[in-house]
Amino acid sequence: MTPILNFLIPTTDACRRSGPQDKIVFSSRVRLARNLRGAPFPGHAKKVDRVKAFDQLMPAVSRLPQAAPDPYAESMDKPTAQEKQILVERHLISREHATKTAGSGLVLNQEETLSIMVNEEDHLRMQSLLPGLQLHLAWKAIDEVDTCLQEQVEFAFHPQYGFLTACPTNLGTGIRVSAMLHLPGLVLAEQINQIIQAVSKLGLAVRGLYGEGTQALGNIFQISNQQTLGESEQEIVERLNKVVLQVIDHEEDARISQLEKRPNVLFNQIGRAYGILSHAHTISSNETMNLLSLLRLGVDLGLFPGTPRTLVDELFLLSQPAHLQLGRVEKLDADHRDVVRAEMLRQRVKGVSTPDHTKTTAKTESI
Amino acid sequence: MTPILNFLIPTTDACRRSGPQDKIVFSSRVRLARNLRGAPFPGHAKKVDRVKAFDQLMPAVSRLPQAAPDPYAESMDKPTAQEKQILVERHLISREHATKTAGSGLVLNQEETLSIMVNEEDHLRMQSLLPGLQLHLAWKAIDEVDTCLQEQVEFAFHPQYGFLTACPTNLGTGIRVSAMLHLPGLVLAEQINQIIQAVSKLGLAVRGLYGEGTQALGNIFQISNQQTLGESEQEIVERLNKVVLQVIDHEEDARISQLEKRPNVLFNQIGRAYGILSHAHTISSNETMNLLSLLRLGVDLGLFPGTPRTLVDELFLLSQPAHLQLGRVEKLDADHRDVVRAEMLRQRVKGVSTPDHTKTTAKTESI
Repeated sequence: MTPILNFLIPTTDACRRSGPQDKIVFSSRVRLARNLRGAPFPGHAKKVDRVKAFDQLMPAVSRLPQAAPDPYAESMDKPTAQEKQILVERHLISREHATKTAGSGLVLNQEETLSIMVNEEDHLRMQSLLPGLQLHLAWKAIDEVDTCLQEQVEFAFHPQYGFLTACPTNLGTGIRVSAMLHLPGLVLAEQINQIIQAVSKLGLAVRGLYGEGTQALGNIFQISNQQTLGESEQEIVERLNKVVLQVIDHEEDARISQLEKRPNVLFNQIGRAYGILSHAHTISSNETMNLLSLLRLGVDLGLFPGTPRTLVDELFLLSQPAHLQLGRVEKLDADHRDVVRAEMLRQRVKGVSTPDHTKTTAKTESI
Repeated sequence: MTPILNFLIPTTDACRRSGPQDKIVFSSRVRLARNLRGAPFPGHAKKVDRVKAFDQLMPAVSRLPQAAPDPYAESMDKPTAQEKQILVERHLISREHATKTAGSGLVLNQEETLSIMVNEEDHLRMQSLLPGLQLHLAWKAIDEVDTCLQEQVEFAFHPQYGFLTACPTNLGTGIRVSAMLHLPGLVLAEQINQIIQAVSKLGLAVRGLYGEGTQALGNIFQISNQQTLGESEQEIVERLNKVVLQVIDHEEDARISQLEKRPNVLFNQIGRAYGILSHAHTISSNETMNLLSLLRLGVDLGLFPGTPRTLVDELFLLSQPAHLQLGRVEKLDADHRDVVRAEMLRQRVKGVSTPDHTKTTAKTESI
């Protein structure tokens, strides 16, 4: 096992971690963008400057008390392309960072709740990632990291504009607060576009599973702040938290109303999803995400007694390309991957009880 | 129970009847069109003439030794609309005959192998319907009926043109020979259009499940003769029989080659069909036909050990609208019917063993 694969938490354990509201909120994330004073941004820096920043930041970051004990701390030329992809699939690094090699680095704590990218778009991209809805806690954690680092290095800071960043959309607080939500009820009730519009009007962005420009596969939506200027970090976190709580309410209402008004449509979609997942012999990543979303909804509605939600969450992760490739010598092409994915799903979904729509009588309690 | 429902063979028994080549050939049918000499065709006849023809023909037809013992023999105003639809779904009467009322009649033997429509488009439409590939036997059976009737009534016959019929496409022999084939292999291999073209060039027609102008749902195709003039009945039957045997060979080759070249595609389609049929909560008639076709193919390929093909054949029948309505007081609309159909399928498909693609090792023997 290579260092990073050895370091990462097994998927089963990773998906078993719970948090408040985790029926609807997969995770909460707060990240800060920071840059060294007087040093060119990584995208514009010459190699020597990038290495200088790397050499200054990596030791400081690795020794952070918040990363202890024994964090993973390596240059980005260490993990293979596949390993980097695994980190992307677990939301521990950005897609952009996965393209980096020597001169960029990653520091990760053992719990995988703290991830710090060195020389991504900014010198530092620091994120706190927690299960369920824990935006305040995530903010607190990353704020401590930030405070701690500011005692050791000087960040580029303008008295009027705040923290300077490579991209102006991060200028000021350099904060991006986001929550990953599972909203199948709103999608089935065809209310999702309304919600997206309402949330957008509040100056928040709604995106797909892997952030900017990605599709909302599996009915998974990321809500994040757009503005980083003119508002304090606390205010941004609080505002997002409030909106997420409202969206959760709407999602719960949508589920109850769908169950009451169109139970057959709901049972039909969930049942078919279960039937396909347990019997397909080739299945794409996109179709899998959408079917797993319905399976997860079924678990939430009590249709699969005895099946924990975490089992479905693990399937979301294990269905991703790099996770499928894990432990296989031959490189899977897309067609072969679809076959391997179907095989994995057939085997795992055996562990899911067959759907029983009569078990939803306790629906309001369950929701 | 009304007379006709009481008379009909239960679906389970009806589908259990077997015949040669019935893995690929559902049924063989030979029908003759005949008209009374000197009497106007039913479509042009005044009521009094139609009743006259009816009164002359019904007693003769009912007393046919080939219809004995105790045939069903009734005027078409006796069965309800739903009962007529059941007769259509079982291929015992034409869609056109289902619209007829008083003045038209039906005689059916107990085995449902002989069905004679009085005052359909012609005064007599007599069909012999046998399971599997038994075109010669079906011809022999209906020829005997014809001979027997000719001793009692005089048919419109022209020395040059042969038997006169309401529609010129039936002129001459008045014969329509057809076989109903299940060709999922040729459809999956995308060779079906080639086969249809080749068969058409031989002067034969390829149609869907319910004859002229209907879609080939469930990969079911009807092959029949186009010409009724210039060839003897024996020649027509023999020619069709030969072509059907060739199509059977092509279908078997296509199945073997798909299994060898694209096993995952095959297992995928069959597995998904099984998964959906056993877990859907609403399903249309068309989708059902197509999925049942794949299930039947799976049974043929040995993927469902212990599941008889007849179980699938019964589901084909039970999924039809009028059969679904059977035994229900409230009239089902289309939406409700889709729910009832899904419910019936979920319950029945429980009796099918779960698919096991490892069981296809004996594939060549199985085919």
